[in-house]
Order: sequence, then structure tokens, then C-alpha cells
Amino acid sequence: MPLLAVTPDVIAAAARRVMARCEELARVTATPGTIERVYLSPEHARVNRLAAEWMRELGMVTWQDAAGNQMGRIEPTPTPGAAPPAPGETPALMLGSHLDTVLDAGRFDGIVGVLTALEVVRLLRRPVPGGDARGRGTPAATVDLPFAIEVAAFSDEEGTRFGKALLGSSAVAGTWEESWWDLTDGDGDTLRHAFREFGLDPGRIGEAARRREDLIGYLEVHIEQGPQLHRIGEPLAVVSSIASARRFQLTVQGEARHAGGTPYDVRRDALLGASEAALAVESICSAEHHIIGTVGQLEAFPGSVNVVPGEARLSLDLRGEFDGDRDRVWDAITHELDRIMGRRGLRWRSREIHNAPAVMCAPLLQDVVREGIVATLPERSEAPPEIFSRAGHDGMSIGAITDVGMLFLRNPDGISHHPEEAVSAPDVALGLRAITESVLQLANDYRARP
Amino acid sequence: MPLLAVTPDVIAAAARRVMARCEELARVTATPGTIERVYLSPEHARVNRLAAEWMRELGMVTWQDAAGNQMGRIEPTPTPGAAPPAPGETPALMLGSHLDTVLDAGRFDGIVGVLTALEVVRLLRRPVPGGDARGRGTPAATVDLPFAIEVAAFSDEEGTRFGKALLGSSAVAGTWEESWWDLTDGDGDTLRHAFREFGLDPGRIGEAARRREDLIGYLEVHIEQGPQLHRIGEPLAVVSSIASARRFQLTVQGEARHAGGTPYDVRRDALLGASEAALAVESICSAEHHIIGTVGQLEAFPGSVNVVPGEARLSLDLRGEFDGDRDRVWDAITHELDRIMGRRGLRWRSREIHNAPAVMCAPLLQDVVREGIVATLPERSEAPPEIFSRAGHDGMSIGAITDVGMLFLRNPDGISHHPEEAVSAPDVALGLRAITESVLQLANDYRARP
Repeated sequence: MPLLAVTPDVIAAAARRVMARCEELARVTATPGTIERVYLSPEHARVNRLAAEWMRELGMVTWQDAAGNQMGRIEPTPTPGAAPPAPGETPALMLGSHLDTVLDAGRFDGIVGVLTALEVVRLLRRPVPGGDARGRGTPAATVDLPFAIEVAAFSDEEGTRFGKALLGSSAVAGTWEESWWDLTDGDGDTLRHAFREFGLDPGRIGEAARRREDLIGYLEVHIEQGPQLHRIGEPLAVVSSIASARRFQLTVQGEARHAGGTPYDVRRDALLGASEAALAVESICSAEHHIIGTVGQLEAFPGSVNVVPGEARLSLDLRGEFDGDRDRVWDAITHELDRIMGRRGLRWRSREIHNAPAVMCAPLLQDVVREGIVATLPERSEAPPEIFSRAGHDGMSIGAITDVGMLFLRNPDGISHHPEEAVSAPDVALGLRAITESVLQLANDYRARP
Repeated sequence: MPLLAVTPDVIAAAARRVMARCEELARVTATPGTIERVYLSPEHARVNRLAAEWMRELGMVTWQDAAGNQMGRIEPTPTPGAAPPAPGETPALMLGSHLDTVLDAGRFDGIVGVLTALEVVRLLRRPVPGGDARGRGTPAATVDLPFAIEVAAFSDEEGTRFGKALLGSSAVAGTWEESWWDLTDGDGDTLRHAFREFGLDPGRIGEAARRREDLIGYLEVHIEQGPQLHRIGEPLAVVSSIASARRFQLTVQGEARHAGGTPYDVRRDALLGASEAALAVESICSAEHHIIGTVGQLEAFPGSVNVVPGEARLSLDLRGEFDGDRDRVWDAITHELDRIMGRRGLRWRSREIHNAPAVMCAPLLQDVVREGIVATLPERSEAPPEIFSRAGHDGMSIGAITDVGMLFLRNPDGISHHPEEAVSAPDVALGLRAITESVLQLANDYRARP
């Protein structure tokens, strides 16, 4: 049963605005001709300023938190006759996603979730004529809901710069770890140093953490980062859970030697060991259901054309629907690597840089997302598709402090983390309507709670 | 029959000076803690200045040529009664090697050849009291030989910076190619640009070229870059020929996709193709005699931990004693790469960045080197060992304009292009005596020529 009473042209205009802003954000890049916005970069600061401006246009109060996440908040319309609660006091539904990207990225991953969240606020806001000028002089507004809405534009979901993903949302979840300060980027700069360069104080990271009682849940719209919806011809899906993920940096140690003078029998070529390792990951994981492993980085050192590599470093990203399967596969990989490296006279070591257990979407939020899709596509006879997300999302961290729900948008070619990543404006319009319906449905449930 | 009448302590002191100067040069590096001196870098300029100073101490005339090679020359002692030839007019025997390094290099490869050449000049020079002050005010000197001696400190043998090896000696050989100007380094700077930054004029490169009639031959002392002398317990060897070498940059093209969302059946992972390629090179080359292939560089792009690599770039260095064998193996590799990439839905291409045919050492110079070894180690009953050099050397280019001869020094562990690369001072002393004997032997032959 649709709860949102707006005409299709209002939704279509909102979807066009989302698409246009995706283009606008795509122009904020460290490398012209490609899209590249990493954590704590000048581009990060620029998109935060843009997002804050868009939030304030809607009458939201905005702040950049202690981890560089751009946040905005709009209070509920006060109950007539009742004393209005102090700003920030009412629990909030958090909507959002992230604005950082991988290298040579597409324009929608994360971005479309943040921009859709802003359109949800636009659809549900009620301007307060003559209201005070909170939010830097923009007209105050409220939302017709029993809870506040916060929009989170997370600052680091991809982990592109420091290898460790979900830094932004981990700060919000209060699960930041002290050891992360020593993570280094490709230039050898520590996360601690990058914080200070960006103008943030590492000592205040705890201030980004939100309390469980401040939030009633977290909802995110995201493009599917694979081809499943496209294959079944559906525009929207309920996400059932988010894959568990572990990431490792592997180092293979051999001995650098002259490429001409060193016969094969005395070589201990680290790159050949690493090559076998990458192929072993493919071979082991592709034999498993619901497990996927990727070597996205590999580099040989010293990296001269005429030197047998003495060291090779590679990354491993391992995902599974269930933590146990994923860990069993990691064990199988380590045994195979022992065998490969032993045969080649090489040594290897691994450092785990990310470990996120699988996160189940909350049954209630799965339900409201499902109802949102049904209200948007009433002519469908079947239940909306349910997808397990192999990709990681900010909800994996936020799940530590509140319920998480997600809506996936169809990705026409299933391509993601690539310039050709796509989503259609009509699908964005459907997704926007569905998530707004979900929020209204949740509001009804919330009002009915004892 | 020894021709050099000096006591062992003179030779031992010279060898210690060579070792000490190897240490001194090792401190000239772009990366502290490692040795790294690439073509046209500030470190290149610094070692040229040092080498020039050492040459002038010996009374040599010095110049940095149009390709950044540091050259020095000393004239022969004039025949009593005859009019002395104009400086530079008498043909010269060129001695030398290179001062550039690979990344994270050892301290002897190339270096020891340049420094040994200076000690040959020191052993054979005759100071000219009251002679004019050519060579920037240092005392003039001559050598007791029927030819001049030139010492060449070549500026680029390794090809570390631009992928193309032997740039310095190719300029001297007059075989510089116009297309090289557009070679780029890791920062995208062209060779043309680097020339100008260094203070050299690309338009004058031809001035580095020497004429065939200016030279009577080229002799080089070099550490063996493998374990053969160590294995047979011999300190010195005659080099019979220098391997033919080809170098390629290979690019594998697939499609970048999200590491989580993309099932194996739709992946086109460029890194896995490149890994198979590296293993195929090993498998094909190790089945051949006298052929060695090395993948020294491999990198995945975009190079994010959570992106299936859409592109991979790798280098291939292929060496053989005979050009035909080497080319046949390259054909076999290309067929195997077609098969691998076809199966994985990848495309690949190659660009040849270096192609040097095998160079035979001149029989006459092989003979004088052999005689030099025999005179140095008279107690040996067998003929000195002969080695085919799998490693490339400046003689490969210089062979285009003059005869080439080489003497190898034992390398205790056969390690090269690595910080642990080594040679012993007693072996350097033996090598210095042997190459000096070779020069004296060549002088006798030269005097006896009709």
C-alpha cells in the first residue's frame, strides 16, 4: 500500500537531480580523466563541502565528524501541543552511504546512496516558515516522521588509501582500533599523519562514535555490484546480508639476483611464487560456493627488468556468505601457499588488514524495504528478490550499534569499481520511491510501538 | 711470461683502493640504505665528478661526453727523438665499465671495472716532470705503451630508468636511435626531457660517437654475475661471448570489476593472465639449454585490494648464447601467451624495448686476456676457464666499432644485482694484475704489427 503521495514527475525530477549530482561529484578527482577520491585527500574535503551545502539547502544541520564523515540531520515535526524536544535529542533513522572511491572508479558506488538519502529528506521535509536559522542561515525544516533523519556521507568505505576498509563508518560505530593509526598509504604516510594533514585530531576520534540509543536504524541504497538483478530482469532487491570479508597483505621473500647470470636451479624468484599464489587463490575459491577471493594488487621488488625478484607483495580479498566457510578457505589457501613456497625455497608471511564478519540485515528492516519495493512496483506478483551482498558496505560497521537494512538498484552490466559502472535514471527513481516508502512504513511501525 | 714488474704489495694496495672506492661510490645513492644510481640522476652527476677527479689525479684529460659518460684519456709516452703526436691523435685502447646501478644494487657490478681500469693506468703511467698542466692543473703523465689509454665510465648499462639498457655505450658506438628519445621513466618523463634536466643537449648526442679508427679495442673487467667460477674454484676467466638479449614490455588487458560482486564466470582478470604468463616463461625457458627468461616487473591496475585487475604489465628479459635459439623461444612464449589469454578472455600485446645480438669476444683479445691470466697464475697447469656471459655488458654496444675482450672476476656466492653482491680484495688484485698483463701483451702485439 503506497504511503507516499507525490506524482511521478516529482520522483523523476529527483532521480535526475541524483544523476546530475553523480556527474558533478565525478569531476572531483585526484587524477583528471578518471575518478579517484581517497580518504583524507583534498578531493575528500571538496565533496564533503558540496554534500554539506546540499544538506543545508534542505534545512539540515550539518557537521563533519571527527573521522571526516559529512553528517546532516533534520528534526521531526513537533507533535502539536507538546513541548518540542531539544535538537539532537530525538533518536534518528540514519540514511546514507559513502563518497570515497576506488582508483579509476565509477560514479555511482556509494555516491548514489548518499544522494538518494538527500532526496528522501526533500520528499518528506516540511519547511518551517519563520523558523529559526539553524544550519548557517538556511531556512529551518522538519520531517513528517516520529524520528529525526540523519544523512551520513561516509568518508572511507573502500579502503583505497590505507588498505583497511570502512574506516569512516567504523569511527561512527565506535569500533576504531588504535593499531590503525600506524597503517600507511602508498607514500608511506601513516593514517595518523594523514588525519593531521586533513585538519583532524586523532585524539578526538572517539567523538565520531554514536550511541546505540541515538539511532533507530540504518538504511542504505546501493547499486548492486554484480549482475544478478540484471540477469533476472528486476530493478530492485532486498539485501538479506552482507558478506563477511577478510583482507590480507601477503609478502613472498626470495632472493634478488642478476637475471642473466643466475641459472634456474639457484633462483628463488619471489614473483613466480606470488604468481602461483594468485592462481591458487582462484583455483581454491572457484571450487567453493559463496566464496570469492581476489588478488587485486601484486608487485615485484626490486622491480628491475634485469633482476630476479627478491620480494613480491600481493593483496588478498576473501569474501563469503558465512564466516566459517570463509575461514576454512583461508586455511586451505595457507596450506597451499606453504606447499608452493616450500617447493621454491621461498618464505611467505601474511598480515590481516581487515576482518569483518558477515552482517545479517535486520528482519524488521528487510521487511520495510520489501514493503517499500512492493508499494513501488504493485503490479509485480512475486515477492521482491532477495540478494546476499558479496560486496562490503558501511552497514557492516554500523551493524555494531544499530539495525541495518539495504536496498539494491540494478546495475545494467554488473560492472562495478570501473568507469563503466552504471545505473539508469528510471531505476534510481524506482529506488528512491521504494526507500521513501520504506521510511514511511518504518515510521508507521515506530508510531505503533508500545 | 709476466711483463709487469711490480711487487705484490703494490698490487695489493691498488686492490684495496678499488675496494675502498667501491664503498665510497656506494654511498652515492638516491635511496639511503640501498644503492640506487640511475641514468641522468643527481647521483649520476656526483659519481661522474668523483670519477673525473680520480682520473685527473692520474694526469688524465677528462670530459663528460654528450651522453653523460665520464671519459678520461692518457697519451702514450712519445718515442724518443720523434715528434710527439697531437693529443687525441693516437688510437686508444679503451678500458672501462659502467657506474649506474639497478635498484637496491650491489657495489661491484660495473664499478669494479671502472676502478680497476684506473689502477691499470696508475701501474703503467709515467709522470712527466715539468710537463704541461693539461687536465686542469694536475701533473701531466703518459703511459709506457704504443697507444693511448682511455677509461670509460659508462652512464647507463643497466637500463633501470628507461627500460632500454646500454644507452651510454650505444652513444659511444654511434648506434643511438631517434625513437629512444620518447622512452619514458616511471614518472612519465621522457629520455629527451631527462637529458635536458641533466644539462645535456639531445641534439648533440652524435658527438659522443667514436670512430672505429680512434680505437684499437675495448677491454673490461667485470664480476661474474653467476656462480660458475665459484663452483669450479677459479678466481678469473676469459669471456668468450656475451649473451644475446631481448627485452619486452607485455601488457595484459582484461576488465576491472568489483572484487565482491563479480562471479568467477564473468571475470576477465588481467593479473591471473599475467601470473600464468610469468610461470609459462619459466617453464618454457627452463626446458632449454643456454636460454634464460626473467619476469622482473609485474604490476596490476587499477591496483586496489577490492578490484579485479583490468590490466597487468610485466617485463620479460630473454637471453641466449645464440640469437636463433632465443628468437625461437620467444616464438614459443608468444604461442603459449595466445593460448592462456584466449582461454581467459584477455588480450595481450608486447613492445620490444631492447634487442642486442650475441657478441663474440675478439679472438685476439680473448688471447691476451688468457695470457694475462696465465702470467698472473703461473702455477695453474690448465688453460684458464672460458665463460659465456649470460649477462649483458657495455661491450655488446662497443662491439659495433671495435674489438671487445672481457675478464671475469669470481663472485663468491654468484649473487648479483643485490646488496649482497661480492668480490674479494685478493681476487680484485689477481684481476688487476691479469688485465694489466693483458694490456702489456697487447702492446707487444701492437708493436709487432707491420
